Amino acid sequence: MNSFGTALRLTLFGESHGPQVGIVIDGIPAGTPLSEEDLLPDLARRRGGSSIGSTPRTEQDRPAIVSGLLNGRTTGAPVTLLFANSNLRPQDYDALRNHCRPSHADMTAAAKYGGYNDPRGGGMFSGRMTVALVAAGAIAKKLLPGITFTTRLTEIGGTADPDRFDELLADLRRRGDSAGGIVEVAAQGVTRGTGEPFFDSVESVAAHLLFAIPGIKGVEFGAGFAAARRTGSTNNDRIADAAGHTFTNNDGGINGGIANGNDIILRVAFKPTPSIALPQETFDARTGQPSPLVIQGRHDACIALRGAVVAEAALALALADLSLRRG
Amino acid sequence: MNSFGTALRLTLFGESHGPQVGIVIDGIPAGTPLSEEDLLPDLARRRGGSSIGSTPRTEQDRPAIVSGLLNGRTTGAPVTLLFANSNLRPQDYDALRNHCRPSHADMTAAAKYGGYNDPRGGGMFSGRMTVALVAAGAIAKKLLPGITFTTRLTEIGGTADPDRFDELLADLRRRGDSAGGIVEVAAQGVTRGTGEPFFDSVESVAAHLLFAIPGIKGVEFGAGFAAARRTGSTNNDRIADAAGHTFTNNDGGINGGIANGNDIILRVAFKPTPSIALPQETFDARTGQPSPLVIQGRHDACIALRGAVVAEAALALALADLSLRRG
Amino acid sequence: MNSFGTALRLTLFGESHGPQVGIVIDGIPAGTPLSEEDLLPDLARRRGGSSIGSTPRTEQDRPAIVSGLLNGRTTGAPVTLLFANSNLRPQDYDALRNHCRPSHADMTAAAKYGGYNDPRGGGMFSGRMTVALVAAGAIAKKLLPGITFTTRLTEIGGTADPDRFDELLADLRRRGDSAGGIVEVAAQGVTRGTGEPFFDSVESVAAHLLFAIPGIKGVEFGAGFAAARRTGSTNNDRIADAAGHTFTNNDGGINGGIANGNDIILRVAFKPTPSIALPQETFDARTGQPSPLVIQGRHDACIALRGAVVAEAALALALADLSLRRG
Amino acid sequence: MNSFGTALRLTLFGESHGPQVGIVIDGIPAGTPLSEEDLLPDLARRRGGSSIGSTPRTEQDRPAIVSGLLNGRTTGAPVTLLFANSNLRPQDYDALRNHCRPSHADMTAAAKYGGYNDPRGGGMFSGRMTVALVAAGAIAKKLLPGITFTTRLTEIGGTADPDRFDELLADLRRRGDSAGGIVEVAAQGVTRGTGEPFFDSVESVAAHLLFAIPGIKGVEFGAGFAAARRTGSTNNDRIADAAGHTFTNNDGGINGGIANGNDIILRVAFKPTPSIALPQETFDARTGQPSPLVIQGRHDACIALRGAVVAEAALALALADLSLRRG
Repeated sequence: MNSFGTALRLTLFGESHGPQVGIVIDGIPAGTPLSEEDLLPDLARRRGGSSIGSTPRTEQDRPAIVSGLLNGRTTGAPVTLLFANSNLRPQDYDALRNHCRPSHADMTAAAKYGGYNDPRGGGMFSGRMTVALVAAGAIAKKLLPGITFTTRLTEIGGTADPDRFDELLADLRRRGDSAGGIVEVAAQGVTRGTGEPFFDSVESVAAHLLFAIPGIKGVEFGAGFAAARRTGSTNNDRIADAAGHTFTNNDGGINGGIANGNDIILRVAFKPTPSIALPQETFDARTGQPSPLVIQGRHDACIALRGAVVAEAALALALADLSLRRG
Repeated sequence: MNSFGTALRLTLFGESHGPQVGIVIDGIPAGTPLSEEDLLPDLARRRGGSSIGSTPRTEQDRPAIVSGLLNGRTTGAPVTLLFANSNLRPQDYDALRNHCRPSHADMTAAAKYGGYNDPRGGGMFSGRMTVALVAAGAIAKKLLPGITFTTRLTEIGGTADPDRFDELLADLRRRGDSAGGIVEVAAQGVTRGTGEPFFDSVESVAAHLLFAIPGIKGVEFGAGFAAARRTGSTNNDRIADAAGHTFTNNDGGINGGIANGNDIILRVAFKPTPSIALPQETFDARTGQPSPLVIQGRHDACIALRGAVVAEAALALALADLSLRRG
Repeated sequence: MNSFGTALRLTLFGESHGPQVGIVIDGIPAGTPLSEEDLLPDLARRRGGSSIGSTPRTEQDRPAIVSGLLNGRTTGAPVTLLFANSNLRPQDYDALRNHCRPSHADMTAAAKYGGYNDPRGGGMFSGRMTVALVAAGAIAKKLLPGITFTTRLTEIGGTADPDRFDELLADLRRRGDSAGGIVEVAAQGVTRGTGEPFFDSVESVAAHLLFAIPGIKGVEFGAGFAAARRTGSTNNDRIADAAGHTFTNNDGGINGGIANGNDIILRVAFKPTPSIALPQETFDARTGQPSPLVIQGRHDACIALRGAVVAEAALALALADLSLRRG
Repeated sequence: MNSFGTALRLTLFGESHGPQVGIVIDGIPAGTPLSEEDLLPDLARRRGGSSIGSTPRTEQDRPAIVSGLLNGRTTGAPVTLLFANSNLRPQDYDALRNHCRPSHADMTAAAKYGGYNDPRGGGMFSGRMTVALVAAGAIAKKLLPGITFTTRLTEIGGTADPDRFDELLADLRRRGDSAGGIVEVAAQGVTRGTGEPFFDSVESVAAHLLFAIPGIKGVEFGAGFAAARRTGSTNNDRIADAAGHTFTNNDGGINGGIANGNDIILRVAFKPTPSIALPQETFDARTGQPSPLVIQGRHDACIALRGAVVAEAALALALADLSLRRG
């Protein structure tokens, strides 16, 4: 089901090459100031048209708010955002119909939906859907006035030195290849007690949303996988004061699934863009033989660049949902 | 909320030191053969009483099935499992009431519930709750007859050589310390097409359950964080046949959130047991001063040992829930 | 929350005088033939522009399907329908801002949303929202190929003789008054076993949807309230054959919440349209005094006329949701 | 699914003749005073052992609270209630295995679950399950401190004169027959604004729960079906003051699905107990012939007597769920 959330509920719809992508956001308290302009800064971060590593496909990416808003304030009714899809070039994808792209959803979508799925541009499996998630995330942040988000791209293709990122991306473009990347999101100011025990831990709800984002294959909180390689005596976060602040933050601001008042820190792993210009090989179902594959069009050299704000939106949505539930 | 699942729905209840821990499992097809004995092998794997790295607290861990079963078959009504809590030693925890244990949920639980939470043994934040999850997972596997699970503890405290695990654990015990660990779970035979687009991807549903397990701070699928350090040309999984098998499995058997027919592979990071025998320091809310802390009782040197079968149960529950939904 | 359903999930959005009313329908099996034209017959039944008892406000009521459809078949992605709102005359409602209409949602909406609600035409509390429900119901019927729906307006204002309905409605129009009505919906061919025990009985799911429809104040199944006035020996439905057919159908085709293979029969009570042309009295919050009220515009003399197909849609949606769940 | 509720979530389990019936109640705010004794008055009202019209089967009906409670206060964890089933006489039901009781769930349950259902005493379709609902309702009332419930049995078998009820019931017992009844529940003091628009109207949520109760075949709010027989000019509730009080209450305290501050009033129709001592006829699946049926055991002459407090519990649970959601 294309819905998520308990107190703040998202319903996502649309396809990469359909007329519109949209999202219904239910649960926004009435009276929240909102305008389409409020959503543009995060949408611009996602669009990344100017970045050397991102695809130059430039959607207008301007949301139309078609419900739930009156005189600049939310009304308590669901807020619906629509994004027109423009710049569609379905011919880019014609060659792909009969042999699936490696590490894409082409084959799983066809299997799941008996071939009735919309294959154009990946259909509803496209990264295009995240435009709606980012806009929803911008709204979620308005519901979290005391929280500051800091998001960084910490690695591209294994390189952690930001000074080298542009050079790496230019090289990937030249070679027709792509690279993965790691994004870190920190949320400062999360109220202690946010989150639910067991199934709706902060980690569970945030990871549920994060793993919905195309290309994310790993999520860790605090020290994450590094904690697995430590001892308890070095990993435990010593408590510093009555407010629960700790001297270290290996738990990433979460104990027992509940925010402890320290910064919530997470990192996500984006795999390399599977669409690359380099010649590949796939399987041709018509001939029953291997077949060469060249993917046309221009694609992100590293989806983590544009994905950073998407991951941030996911955390904001998780925290807003949990915060709006009763404590 | 202590419920999870759409077609297979779990409702968890109980506390570490209450009379019982239990789980209601709804959605099991009528006519499924089931007995309490079926659940014992996985429960024995979780109990780990004989392992050098696990706590010797030995619950009876024998489930009573109190609803939904007649003449050895499920009836279509919810199946409820109850586990009696025995071997309770509340005095172990008396010293902890006024100064919280580092990296435990003591402080977040007290903050969230205004001090009304049950602090005994961690209450509902205790690893004790996972006894019910493991039993539910054993039932989930009965609903997935074609799937084989293979689960391994791949690292303890940064060491990946299994020959050294016993030695490491003995050393941790001697020093009164603990270590984290990494568990890998593979599921072979998952039907291609299992999983839902976007919010209910296989990764999202599995990670939601996995991050509910106390101590898990990282989850990755396929190549995971390693994929983020690669190029697309090396990470893409070339398709080998019409069934969608691939020559490599960096995507961990999932594309676009949907199972692609290859093995589903995931790894989870367990942090070190926060309860250690070594003296620690915490904050005493009564005095407003730092305060020494010694945690009594015996605790797991590495919760990943007992956690392995819990992670496997989480994946089984996620796959059963997704499989029982209509395709 | 403006969502409903488990296997077939509806998300409703929009307001009477906003740009659009819409609905997202998730869970439609891929490959279902669908066109906008398929939805027009039921929408025409709801529009009722030609009927003597219905408002002449004529929306275009033509849905645009903006997602989930490709080449005349559903794709497995959510299907989204948009209806443009035209013929808006907000000036009709200007007089109402400061004194609420009796038996309308004006006052409860303002109370619930702190005055931020959209008051124009009742906002999201308007009967206009049911245009989306009727279209969704038409889709639901496509998922229930063996089921025939028969819906009748059985009473208007206490009169059960259909020959007198036109006369009654003309008289109500003349007097500027309105009347309530009773609608009966029968579904023939519902598979025995449809429905869930206890909370998701056929009655529960259908009534949940029916009571969402503006103006419905009563729902009964089978003999309903009449059964409460009988003895068991006269009310029990004697079983006639191995398929569960019964000689009478006082249970309305449902036992223990589960369809028994006989016709499902329900009746709903629509209250009289609260908007009447006759002068009324209300309370003026500015003066703290009673105040005369004249409601401008034209309104349905009896909403049960247009409501009949809405009630039918609700039953179709309930049955489709229950049928798509696993048995 | 045997779960219901959003902010106050119920999960029901057990069968009439299994060892236990129980319910998990999630969402109760931590710190709510609670004891098993608190639940006894409503349970006594349901038991009705002393009433002339109710079955003398006397369960102990004393709940054991096995989770979520510490030192007389809820902890924030789910509260689980268990009721032991005693006084089981399965031999009463032996004769029913091969020919189904008219107007019971015997046949639908067998059809739905492929014969694997628990037939003893109706299994999970038994009125026995309502013992848990009544106890949950008693807890719900504790969460609604300003609300007073008034519940009356207004009709038995068509007779509205309470002075004649005992006589009627005695006569039904003598004749081995049963009768239906009508129960009215009023809730005074419901906060204006309680309820959600459209799908989660007060009527929708309450009716969903009410129609889950075995034997209820009709639900109406305010004037209900009588309103359908009136004109708008006589049915509209004129507003009397700024708080929204009205001179009449034909809307039963609800406009647009939202509580308007007046009393919430509903009536439910219970059908006659289908188990009667009079000889009946059914169909014998083994012989393919009609077959006489005599139902052994003692049964309620009118389930509305014991059902009254169950209906009240359903309304309390609906209001508590809606009240705990954010406004």
